[in-house]
Amino acid sequence: MPAKVAINGYGTIGKRVADAVALQDDMEVVGVSKMSPNFEARLAVEKGFPLYATTKDVLPKFEKAGIKVHGTLEEMLKEADLVVDATPEESGFKPAYEKAGVKAIWQGGEEHSLTNLSFNAAANYADCLGAKFVRVPSCNTTGLIRTLYPLDVHFGIDHVLAVMVRRATDPGDSKKGPINAIEPELEMPSHHGPDVQSVLPKVDIHTIAVKVPTTLMHLHAVSVQLKKKATEREVLDAWRRAPRVKFVKGAEGVKSTAQIMEIARDLGRLRSDLYEIAVWEDGVHVVNGTRLYYFQAVHQESDVVPENVDAIRAMLELEKDGRKSIEKTDRALGIAG
Amino acid sequence: MPAKVAINGYGTIGKRVADAVALQDDMEVVGVSKMSPNFEARLAVEKGFPLYATTKDVLPKFEKAGIKVHGTLEEMLKEADLVVDATPEESGFKPAYEKAGVKAIWQGGEEHSLTNLSFNAAANYADCLGAKFVRVPSCNTTGLIRTLYPLDVHFGIDHVLAVMVRRATDPGDSKKGPINAIEPELEMPSHHGPDVQSVLPKVDIHTIAVKVPTTLMHLHAVSVQLKKKATEREVLDAWRRAPRVKFVKGAEGVKSTAQIMEIARDLGRLRSDLYEIAVWEDGVHVVNGTRLYYFQAVHQESDVVPENVDAIRAMLELEKDGRKSIEKTDRALGIAG
Amino acid sequence: MPAKVAINGYGTIGKRVADAVALQDDMEVVGVSKMSPNFEARLAVEKGFPLYATTKDVLPKFEKAGIKVHGTLEEMLKEADLVVDATPEESGFKPAYEKAGVKAIWQGGEEHSLTNLSFNAAANYADCLGAKFVRVPSCNTTGLIRTLYPLDVHFGIDHVLAVMVRRATDPGDSKKGPINAIEPELEMPSHHGPDVQSVLPKVDIHTIAVKVPTTLMHLHAVSVQLKKKATEREVLDAWRRAPRVKFVKGAEGVKSTAQIMEIARDLGRLRSDLYEIAVWEDGVHVVNGTRLYYFQAVHQESDVVPENVDAIRAMLELEKDGRKSIEKTDRALGIAG
Amino acid sequence: MPAKVAINGYGTIGKRVADAVALQDDMEVVGVSKMSPNFEARLAVEKGFPLYATTKDVLPKFEKAGIKVHGTLEEMLKEADLVVDATPEESGFKPAYEKAGVKAIWQGGEEHSLTNLSFNAAANYADCLGAKFVRVPSCNTTGLIRTLYPLDVHFGIDHVLAVMVRRATDPGDSKKGPINAIEPELEMPSHHGPDVQSVLPKVDIHTIAVKVPTTLMHLHAVSVQLKKKATEREVLDAWRRAPRVKFVKGAEGVKSTAQIMEIARDLGRLRSDLYEIAVWEDGVHVVNGTRLYYFQAVHQESDVVPENVDAIRAMLELEKDGRKSIEKTDRALGIAG
Repeated sequence: MPAKVAINGYGTIGKRVADAVALQDDMEVVGVSKMSPNFEARLAVEKGFPLYATTKDVLPKFEKAGIKVHGTLEEMLKEADLVVDATPEESGFKPAYEKAGVKAIWQGGEEHSLTNLSFNAAANYADCLGAKFVRVPSCNTTGLIRTLYPLDVHFGIDHVLAVMVRRATDPGDSKKGPINAIEPELEMPSHHGPDVQSVLPKVDIHTIAVKVPTTLMHLHAVSVQLKKKATEREVLDAWRRAPRVKFVKGAEGVKSTAQIMEIARDLGRLRSDLYEIAVWEDGVHVVNGTRLYYFQAVHQESDVVPENVDAIRAMLELEKDGRKSIEKTDRALGIAG
Repeated sequence: MPAKVAINGYGTIGKRVADAVALQDDMEVVGVSKMSPNFEARLAVEKGFPLYATTKDVLPKFEKAGIKVHGTLEEMLKEADLVVDATPEESGFKPAYEKAGVKAIWQGGEEHSLTNLSFNAAANYADCLGAKFVRVPSCNTTGLIRTLYPLDVHFGIDHVLAVMVRRATDPGDSKKGPINAIEPELEMPSHHGPDVQSVLPKVDIHTIAVKVPTTLMHLHAVSVQLKKKATEREVLDAWRRAPRVKFVKGAEGVKSTAQIMEIARDLGRLRSDLYEIAVWEDGVHVVNGTRLYYFQAVHQESDVVPENVDAIRAMLELEKDGRKSIEKTDRALGIAG
Repeated sequence: MPAKVAINGYGTIGKRVADAVALQDDMEVVGVSKMSPNFEARLAVEKGFPLYATTKDVLPKFEKAGIKVHGTLEEMLKEADLVVDATPEESGFKPAYEKAGVKAIWQGGEEHSLTNLSFNAAANYADCLGAKFVRVPSCNTTGLIRTLYPLDVHFGIDHVLAVMVRRATDPGDSKKGPINAIEPELEMPSHHGPDVQSVLPKVDIHTIAVKVPTTLMHLHAVSVQLKKKATEREVLDAWRRAPRVKFVKGAEGVKSTAQIMEIARDLGRLRSDLYEIAVWEDGVHVVNGTRLYYFQAVHQESDVVPENVDAIRAMLELEKDGRKSIEKTDRALGIAG
Repeated sequence: MPAKVAINGYGTIGKRVADAVALQDDMEVVGVSKMSPNFEARLAVEKGFPLYATTKDVLPKFEKAGIKVHGTLEEMLKEADLVVDATPEESGFKPAYEKAGVKAIWQGGEEHSLTNLSFNAAANYADCLGAKFVRVPSCNTTGLIRTLYPLDVHFGIDHVLAVMVRRATDPGDSKKGPINAIEPELEMPSHHGPDVQSVLPKVDIHTIAVKVPTTLMHLHAVSVQLKKKATEREVLDAWRRAPRVKFVKGAEGVKSTAQIMEIARDLGRLRSDLYEIAVWEDGVHVVNGTRLYYFQAVHQESDVVPENVDAIRAMLELEKDGRKSIEKTDRALGIAG
């Protein structure tokens, strides 16, 4: 019998996790919950997901909009073995999950201290087996871990400086800006550095973040001081063997994040998502044997989606071997092996 | 035996038409041709489309890039009953098609005079049965015809003023601007008015175009003086019975073109395309009985795709009845009836 | 002795009105007030404007930031004959002004009903002579009045349709969006139509508004049905004789709002402002003798600034003749006659 | 008698250098030359600059546009002691200047090898005294030199990593993009690193460049390994004593490049330019005593303008002492001491 998964918060991440869970053969979606009856709520119903209102007081809004719900979050949790929380940060549902006795996964908007266990399928699947509460770090952090972990395993990392040029908002949003400005995050290091260390505690990393008026992807310019010498080919090989890293080439016309997302569209991915971290093959440079520079792009809406699926599998012990879970997830989502 | 269709020009429109043709049961893709071996060429091969170089002189570029081709355009045309030309405007392939004896469809970048026959499935399918050369008008023109034709049929159109707020470039492009400017088309009327008349010759229409820095969709603000009185409900009903018109609602959070494209993504459409013209249901206003105002949004990359499929069917007489062709195309593309 | 003017709200409009008042020889700035001690507050002090905190409770913020203030709004009003209110809409200071016995001007964010008197220097200066409370309509409305009023005077206006493509936020803002979307105002007509009628009550006008991701200017595509026949030259002549209308030419490289603002920079205007409404000379088209189409661009940050100055002069009766006030204001601001 | 300066190329940089030269008391503009009669040409004439056509073959274009010219470049050079070349890169006018026997300054689009002498007023004024041909490095390079040179003087620089988030085009342009993409410069290091070394040959620097869809400023995230320990206060003090560095504060609402340019507007600078490099005072961080991180923003249109003025003075030996030239230039341009 498939594991029963509920999704609290059916927005950018929640709706993707719901679809991804529905594609796995060892788990199913028992419900999705939402605060407001917008077009996403209507589409959830059309897809056949049991829809719940998050709280009692928003029930009238759903009724007024003519969108039927199965009840409230409280009732949804009764149906579930595990809930994926994709609500806005600090929504504070932990007591509700504890009361309902369900396991829970949070997203990267929350602090590591909420769970004391942050997850990355390649790096620490085994540590999360059977865990009650787990956090999947943010899109940017997950992106950094995807490429840094293999580097650390193969060559050892002395220290990292990552400058993250962040998209300002998601494509489906039309409120936030800026429209014509570049905005540095003056606090330093940005939260991403410590966040990487929540999964890779020994990696010495400093992160700097800058926000720019685009919606498609984050772009990282990464500088890594390796402990062992490596050639560009060896670095590429290490990533090729790692999960969820995809190469793109400037020489083939992939000049920017626009063409990367165009590839995702051409691949026919659901919602034109790119679950993998895209690394420019011809943008990888090793200087003096141990100083590595590279560019990577992160699809902020979707790179954490397969991690959520793997985290479910680890926490519910549906699969003991992380590598096997990754393969299973990737096959279901159409990610090339 | 399915009809044999070749696609000359495998870019924004060409690749979409190729996929759409491949989804029909009465036609197949016998080849796609391209000038340069970029990432789209590589993906065409991965999809299994026979790839051809447009001309002999670009063959070495494909070889250098390690992308195998089946020959040149000339050879591709020998395999085809009909070629869809999705090359840049005024590429001048008509003599080549005539020499090869294939039927051909051009896109809206070309003048009506190239074929003297411009196509819209709902408006003039019958006129194009068996035709040798046909033009599918541009995305904007097709968008205007989709909503104006039913109005003209049901209420009669006295005259139209359409202000088109155009996206500046497509999402996969990263060269063109503007970044922070609004650019009016000073020549008037813009070419779209006469272009609508290439299909609907009796409609009195004036069009004004303005370019803005977005990539997602064109937005039209349309003012129509009707001959007969109509209520908003009657107008909506006329469109509801017309093909490829889809309603969206501001009240459900669809505030802008961003949310419309988000719906297309959520619907799981290939490349997150929206073949239909989106009309804001709560943006339709009738003043004094006969003056109609409405907003519609046009997905410039894909609204002409089903029209191309229907045009193929009409020209090769695979189906005599336009309504049946539309239904067939829409079912294959996942467009709700 | 110069008239004493206070400015409540020292943001986009307020700081410009303050500078413009300071440039006139018949009025002076006795104080500017602000809610928060940001960089604009610091620059106000550096310029020598007496700075006041709007309310008592924000005084500690100014103290903490090390920015000295002369007191609060209440005290500033005691120094003033007239206050220009450039606070966010519905800030509700009317009772305070009444209590202090000062005349007041509000901006277009407020409803006409707040003052029952809306001002445009060319159209109704005389009506506002000696008035206690006056509203200067919004940038868009002022822009429409500037070009419609001369048309009405010279040719008579039967009716107007104006589609306004609006910048989403001002250049100095980095919070608001959208970044990559076009957003129609679904309510119709937009408030601008009735707002034009607050000054030109007999003009039959319908307005449609669309928001786009730029910061520089609004662009209007205007369609006017004239009562009398007019040639393009006659229309241009009518505007040439009207105040605060400036011609630009696509043929000279002015393709978009970007080049218009570049002209304002090249002219050396303070803050690179353009007080005039820019009309594309080669974008004016008359069809069938009475149907006029034109494009104009409105610098939303500054076009109302000279109107505020003239309104002060009318209300305080510093000058009885509107034409003379306009000339005086324009000379001081460097607007060519 | 003032030195006679001609400007070849009256676009973004050329028009600014012309105005800046005109403001100095020891030099004058004897002519500006242009290829096309656009609005900038018309404004040059209105300002009173003698206008020349660059070549004979474009003379008819000026005539047709009704813009009078004094002759061609060749004739303009006869009037000049020195020409500032602000033409597009690799325009190839060096032989013309040699033939005319005038000294010449090129901009950063050219290679260092064209002159073998690159200029920065603070760093190497003395080296350029009396020079025949000098290059002023690009806006980004000048920006890096402005803050790195004082650091090297006071604390010694071990090595630098600078990630430059570049604006895609200038505000007055409406053709170039991207609109919604982030574009890395895959070649590494970007040309800026070697370019910094054309003035500061001993500084070990690696530069990475990323292009984003904004028009206002470049933003640099800089990481410097110092040789000597320094506190944040000591670093700020070093910059405070250096010319053309201006501090801004996030705490005062300067969150992005948008607010920095707003300050330049509020300061009343010509064209709202900011000649100084803006450094976020509250974005300067020293880690472990010698690792310095900071953000700076560069107004690409204007930061090289005062450098051009100083270069003229050095080359024509109007002033032997670089510090005095800087003071003179800054006073004339309104840059606070």
